[in-house]
Amino acid sequence: MKYKLTLAYDGTAYSGWQVQANSRSIQQIVQKTIETILQKPTSLTGAGRTDAGVHALGQTAHIETENPLDLSRFSHSANSLLPPDIRLIALEPVDDSFHARYSATGKIYRYHLCLRSFPSPFKRLYETHVPEKLDLSLIEKALPYFIGTHDFTSFASEAHRGSAAKDPVKTIRSLELFKEEEGIYFEFRADGFLYKMVRNIVGTLLDIGTKKLPLEELPLIFAAKDRKKAGQCAPPTGLFLVKVEYP
Amino acid sequence: MKYKLTLAYDGTAYSGWQVQANSRSIQQIVQKTIETILQKPTSLTGAGRTDAGVHALGQTAHIETENPLDLSRFSHSANSLLPPDIRLIALEPVDDSFHARYSATGKIYRYHLCLRSFPSPFKRLYETHVPEKLDLSLIEKALPYFIGTHDFTSFASEAHRGSAAKDPVKTIRSLELFKEEEGIYFEFRADGFLYKMVRNIVGTLLDIGTKKLPLEELPLIFAAKDRKKAGQCAPPTGLFLVKVEYP
Repeated sequence: MKYKLTLAYDGTAYSGWQVQANSRSIQQIVQKTIETILQKPTSLTGAGRTDAGVHALGQTAHIETENPLDLSRFSHSANSLLPPDIRLIALEPVDDSFHARYSATGKIYRYHLCLRSFPSPFKRLYETHVPEKLDLSLIEKALPYFIGTHDFTSFASEAHRGSAAKDPVKTIRSLELFKEEEGIYFEFRADGFLYKMVRNIVGTLLDIGTKKLPLEELPLIFAAKDRKKAGQCAPPTGLFLVKVEYP
Repeated sequence: MKYKLTLAYDGTAYSGWQVQANSRSIQQIVQKTIETILQKPTSLTGAGRTDAGVHALGQTAHIETENPLDLSRFSHSANSLLPPDIRLIALEPVDDSFHARYSATGKIYRYHLCLRSFPSPFKRLYETHVPEKLDLSLIEKALPYFIGTHDFTSFASEAHRGSAAKDPVKTIRSLELFKEEEGIYFEFRADGFLYKMVRNIVGTLLDIGTKKLPLEELPLIFAAKDRKKAGQCAPPTGLFLVKVEYP
């Protein structure tokens, strides 16, 4: 039997999704919880990594079990055993052909920026504070450069050693700026993302908004296929994996 | 010169407002910050205590200085030196007769409850999770019992040793229940509050909503003037001091 899990987590206290030696990862905590419930070794396959400090409203993963699960009982047990900063928000049986990573057709990320003079004590872990004045009209003009199918090499950080090289051509289906009470957020929808791609694009948009980087350079940055030509990498704090999309 | 400070803080990491031996209090951190800026001993007088884990959107305090302050520079310095979970959100000169505690004419508190089956990973420090089913109509019927001028002895925990006994008669000007997306919050407006009064009233309302305590007993609980007759004390997590009111 195969099951799809949807997880929400506050990434603050973790080294990221992926199991790593000598660090506390979300995958490891969730997998251990599942093994405790099922009383046997179980492999948890995620849709993709999130980095240290990055949050998720809807990360997905799958597991295979020998016997059918009582969905409601399993969810209740998992949420009782999981630490309060990780929640199993949905559990559903899926077809044998389902794979959390390879079946995914797209992902949605949001990046939250606080534009007040000082960050809120209550949102400090969930948004990135920008003390400089931002020209939002410049940022809005920059967004269309990223939408569509492009080689995003200039916006991809080098992946961890051992991870497979990815096709650098991705399609951003939409990239929108939303205004909030005291800040903004960007919503990215794409078929996939390269390593740190959202944070590198947000950092570049911030450099444009603070006039450190002229808008006109964007086509040259894409053409250079060189990470060093683009802007800073924005911190993980404001980033949320909102949803992994499946057919 | 006398100045009124308005502070917001996430109380999670602190032992409460009040300076105590061997613990990290908000008053102590803010006072040290002010002394660092002014380079002389300065006393910070708060409008009242908040307990360990209780948050503030608008706690107030006052200081006296020898020389006039440059308001914008002082605020900037304070917010640069303060930890990110404490913010100075307003600073204003006040009359010599102003006293953060004795000039206050009222206070507003809010208490947030999460009514989902499992609490949100992102709000776990800012709301109290109620796993039981709540009968909100019963709670709404209970609210009017608390509004107005009453002896709240049955809803007051014993104060810390050494603090002065307070008049147990207080006036709750309004007590409202607001519905949120996945929970509710109570907003209390009163001329003053006894020690743990909000948490004891919320705990009693929860006991009514879960039918542990019949609504009809409320008049008897007030009349008994005995803390043991009322309901549980709700945890500090969901409680916010919203505002201290002055004439």
